[in-house]
Amino acid sequence: MEVDELDKDKKDDIDELSLVQRVVIENVRPEIQGGRFPIKRTIGEHVEVTADIYADGHDILRAVLLHRPVSQRDWEEVPMQPLVNDRWQAKFIVSAEGIHLYTLKAWLDPFQSWSRDFSKKLEAGQDISLDLLTGVQLVQAAANGTSGEDARRLSAWASEILRLQKQNLNDAVERLSDVELTARMVLHADRSQATIYGKELTVVVDRERARFSAWYEMFPRSCGAEAGRLGTFQECEKRLEYVSGMGFDVLYLPPIHPIGRTHRKGKNNTEESTPEDVGSPWAIGSKEGGHKAFHPELGALEDFRRLVARAKEFGLEVALDLAFQCAPDHPYVLEHKEWFRVRPDGSVQYAENPPKKYQDIYPLYFENEHNRQLREELRSVVQFWIEQGIRIFRVDNPHTKPFDFWEWLIADIKAAYPEVLFLSEAFTRTKVMHRLSQMGFTQSYTYFAWRNTKSELTEYFTELTQTEVREYFRPNLWPNTPDILTEFLQFGGRPAFIIRLVLAATLGASYGIYGPAFELCENRALRPGSEEYLDSEKYQIRHWDIDSPNSLRTLIARVNQIRRENPALQGDWSLRFHPVDNDQLIVYSKTTGDLSDIIVVVVNLDPHYTQSGWVDLPAESFKLDLQQPYQVHDLLTDARYFWHGTHNYVELNPQLMPAHIFRIRRLVRTERDFDYFL
Amino acid sequence: MEVDELDKDKKDDIDELSLVQRVVIENVRPEIQGGRFPIKRTIGEHVEVTADIYADGHDILRAVLLHRPVSQRDWEEVPMQPLVNDRWQAKFIVSAEGIHLYTLKAWLDPFQSWSRDFSKKLEAGQDISLDLLTGVQLVQAAANGTSGEDARRLSAWASEILRLQKQNLNDAVERLSDVELTARMVLHADRSQATIYGKELTVVVDRERARFSAWYEMFPRSCGAEAGRLGTFQECEKRLEYVSGMGFDVLYLPPIHPIGRTHRKGKNNTEESTPEDVGSPWAIGSKEGGHKAFHPELGALEDFRRLVARAKEFGLEVALDLAFQCAPDHPYVLEHKEWFRVRPDGSVQYAENPPKKYQDIYPLYFENEHNRQLREELRSVVQFWIEQGIRIFRVDNPHTKPFDFWEWLIADIKAAYPEVLFLSEAFTRTKVMHRLSQMGFTQSYTYFAWRNTKSELTEYFTELTQTEVREYFRPNLWPNTPDILTEFLQFGGRPAFIIRLVLAATLGASYGIYGPAFELCENRALRPGSEEYLDSEKYQIRHWDIDSPNSLRTLIARVNQIRRENPALQGDWSLRFHPVDNDQLIVYSKTTGDLSDIIVVVVNLDPHYTQSGWVDLPAESFKLDLQQPYQVHDLLTDARYFWHGTHNYVELNPQLMPAHIFRIRRLVRTERDFDYFL
Repeated sequence: MEVDELDKDKKDDIDELSLVQRVVIENVRPEIQGGRFPIKRTIGEHVEVTADIYADGHDILRAVLLHRPVSQRDWEEVPMQPLVNDRWQAKFIVSAEGIHLYTLKAWLDPFQSWSRDFSKKLEAGQDISLDLLTGVQLVQAAANGTSGEDARRLSAWASEILRLQKQNLNDAVERLSDVELTARMVLHADRSQATIYGKELTVVVDRERARFSAWYEMFPRSCGAEAGRLGTFQECEKRLEYVSGMGFDVLYLPPIHPIGRTHRKGKNNTEESTPEDVGSPWAIGSKEGGHKAFHPELGALEDFRRLVARAKEFGLEVALDLAFQCAPDHPYVLEHKEWFRVRPDGSVQYAENPPKKYQDIYPLYFENEHNRQLREELRSVVQFWIEQGIRIFRVDNPHTKPFDFWEWLIADIKAAYPEVLFLSEAFTRTKVMHRLSQMGFTQSYTYFAWRNTKSELTEYFTELTQTEVREYFRPNLWPNTPDILTEFLQFGGRPAFIIRLVLAATLGASYGIYGPAFELCENRALRPGSEEYLDSEKYQIRHWDIDSPNSLRTLIARVNQIRRENPALQGDWSLRFHPVDNDQLIVYSKTTGDLSDIIVVVVNLDPHYTQSGWVDLPAESFKLDLQQPYQVHDLLTDARYFWHGTHNYVELNPQLMPAHIFRIRRLVRTERDFDYFL
Repeated sequence: MEVDELDKDKKDDIDELSLVQRVVIENVRPEIQGGRFPIKRTIGEHVEVTADIYADGHDILRAVLLHRPVSQRDWEEVPMQPLVNDRWQAKFIVSAEGIHLYTLKAWLDPFQSWSRDFSKKLEAGQDISLDLLTGVQLVQAAANGTSGEDARRLSAWASEILRLQKQNLNDAVERLSDVELTARMVLHADRSQATIYGKELTVVVDRERARFSAWYEMFPRSCGAEAGRLGTFQECEKRLEYVSGMGFDVLYLPPIHPIGRTHRKGKNNTEESTPEDVGSPWAIGSKEGGHKAFHPELGALEDFRRLVARAKEFGLEVALDLAFQCAPDHPYVLEHKEWFRVRPDGSVQYAENPPKKYQDIYPLYFENEHNRQLREELRSVVQFWIEQGIRIFRVDNPHTKPFDFWEWLIADIKAAYPEVLFLSEAFTRTKVMHRLSQMGFTQSYTYFAWRNTKSELTEYFTELTQTEVREYFRPNLWPNTPDILTEFLQFGGRPAFIIRLVLAATLGASYGIYGPAFELCENRALRPGSEEYLDSEKYQIRHWDIDSPNSLRTLIARVNQIRRENPALQGDWSLRFHPVDNDQLIVYSKTTGDLSDIIVVVVNLDPHYTQSGWVDLPAESFKLDLQQPYQVHDLLTDARYFWHGTHNYVELNPQLMPAHIFRIRRLVRTERDFDYFL
């Protein structure tokens, strides 16, 4: 790849240049951290690129966007269009998984500059005989710069104009302004002094599920037919229809490996455990094996592979947990003590967040000379599960491992398996979460669980969907997880669960719930002020009454159906918030680019009281005909309302239904002259 | 210079690393175009650097700002302070002209992390005997990492704590928390895995005049004692007292070289000229010489050198014009036709902006193989005038020459003469003007001349002084030039000149006027709708009545005195606009960092009518005591007003004086208990 000489930092060499690259290309967007990190897209999405492109003087310039899959040698070219103030734009569509590259190229076009000046002189009635010759010189130079038919045609043109010029200047001028000649001159413009942007920028292209996914987290050991007994993979199979019936497409299983015995936690995270206690699935490893082994009571490899295959038949993709840490009994501790931090007494350092101790967990230690073998072993864990058919991983606590480990691991895996997706579980500092996304994570958990008010939600989701962050950070919204039972859910009753479900499923093209705790509205916390579940499944088996009449399963199924049927909800970038004169109500929309699908969501954020207000919709961006009424069709309840103009009334009783998911249906007159709504 | 491994684009090599650089340094500010361009400062100013600095996990980190003059080998270190949200900050002062460098370095501090966790465990009453040993290990490791007295002391400490630990744990703990030990551990932290920011960023440091200057442009040939005769350098000397008396510090002379005869323009830019016509000074070159020669009637080298020396005695620095273009008679045209563009008939291409033709001017042509010789010749022109004592150049139309020519020329000249300043005359597209600044121009003309309304001025000067632009673009504000007589000046009468003078001199720490046309309120345009002067000095000699009683010279002297006496007006970054409830009034302030000087400017933008309104000042940022009245002292008229609170009345009659330049004087109680204002 050539490099833009102007953009290279080699002032000393400028003296040596005999040719000048006069065009500047700068402020290219998207470009993450100076091109250090890729942007992300899914198949079929477009990449819209803008840049400042200009030169000294007043010559006309042309610019192209170059793009290619990394595996392809030749660039495809898209002509860029000037916007205003020297900003240019073009876009391309990514049509295959994997890594794509893009860069820019621009050059001065003397023929177009000449043509512009020539026209002005003609208009002013000036003598243009010499200018005409200059034009012919440019045509002849283009002819000399190419070969074959084009060279012949251009050369013939030049000769013809010269001949005409001697007979009738007007004819020569007309010939020189010929559309086809101009087109050929554009094609054969001299690009030898073109400026090529000094960087090849990267796009990681994923399959659609990276952008649009509905996750369901479930502990397989709680799927047993009877209470008090560990469920098996075979029993999990029986739960597939239930999960699929709610419309999810990813079934995420917490770790399925042998669980350590030493310092095993008891029920409700107590320090002491009895032999009956099942332990935390995240305390991985025992004499039965580590990260490549199955918990003996769940089943064996063939059971697991059948579960994965059966899930697929139900439209469910199984996602596994990558929790790179060990219980004290993990084989790594015996065989590779060098992968851990050792205390002065020779014991292995357990996890701690002083004064809290997690003696059932040993963190891996990446900062010594055994780092490379450790990394390769961890990669082999991922490869092992890929061989078992897994293509989605939820990564536990990635922020406690070095950033560059993730960058290497994810790039390495995706080079062979571009369809593999990684979800980052990091509820930590913003910049760390963003860095992990930049390092390659396909999706990321967010702060959604703790954003409850209108202003919090508006600010946070505007940042996630309307700033550069969206280029690399794909949010996945979880109203609950086994670690997080928010106060809003603890104290808001059933309406709170519906509110958070609708928000998650419509603010986020990707969202997930931890069930059946969620759909059964489990809201008992371990203690006041804690976000831990009482009788958490992390430390014991729970037997859930999934057929409870109070379950939200039907509503969840409806919400997921709405998501599948409305492409507007399958991406995040179109999200816009709209004014409503009640701070307990939040109103936002998502649309498709062609406005064939306009979804307006109204949520009563107050789980206790009926709230009402006047909503303002953007008539212009929705292309609403303000002379006509239109219908808003509530896809949750199937109710239909006639609205008129931009200012309309809404009222939501949380005990009945705290949200509307409206699809706007325009009025279309038919020849029979009665109202019909698209 | 080492490079931050994390920031290098070498994913493939990560596999090979056995050591990990866990700290990330990114989003460093100021950093222009990814560090491609320097920022600018004057001697004694500080550079405040911020960056996102963080690591995986929860360890404590430390960061330093490194800086040095490029000529110095060793970096100076300034500890950085955390702000919020992983943003860090530090600053340094540049104390010498020339190029300075800065970069950042950060590392994890295991001893501080250990110390934090140790304290928490102590507070929680946990068994810390093993943790204490870990601390001792860290001390011993630091001892091993250094030598001499420090190594001995650290080692002794480690032994002592070990000994105490066996006798009395509390004593050992106390010894380990010792302030001096902690300080030594900070000094000897292991930086072997520190992250060094991958770029050395550049500061160009100029003398103060780069930031704070008052320019007076004057045609030497109009300084003659009698009307109708060309003035000489000797006669210019007699004008020095006049210019200096108005308080200017730069005397800028349009080109002083021989003027071409061929196609010489007549008075008022007519195509035909008579032998008596003097021609445009920008049509440089005749048989008498080119860019290194003097117009024969102005004088010879010794006259010029004496003028420069005499000016210096008057506190005036002479600035020359660099107009890199040639009249048809320029020796270059004969000797180096290859430096020009040649038309099909063999003639040299003159300048044109179709349909306009400038047949008296041949542009230089940089785009061929003779480019290098041309550049070197132009550099020799600059060097020639430097040898004659010139250190300031105003560059004519830099935007019609390649950007990289300026970058090379200015860097080359300033390497030998860092005190040389270049003012860019480019009234073209914003991005081109900014690029020229980035290429090295010390100051730049602006769009000030065409920003008349409150909203235009507020928006434009907020952009110039409160965004990243200020790091490299130093505005120089000209209410008029020989090319620009704005409509505001044409139709606003004398008040319009005062309004634009006060705005230029207070919005801009650097400003200039073209005189005596300005102070004599010359406002006759060539024709309606034109910004050209009637009887422009560009094409004829003008004999100005500088002693006219209507001259603004006394007011200008007052304004320049105010600028010299008030450091707040000597920089642009403190500029803030303040609300006033009348759109014809504009209010803004400039302050020193310590608030010892607070200047509030109120300008009536309407040259015709008295305007009044209520001004709101920011009590908090001015640290005004709202319980006390304070004085606003109008430095223009010496009037003093007592103001109270933040909301105060102003009224300006443009026929009397269309502006206030207030200095805020706080009330100070003395022991004698009467009011005294600082």
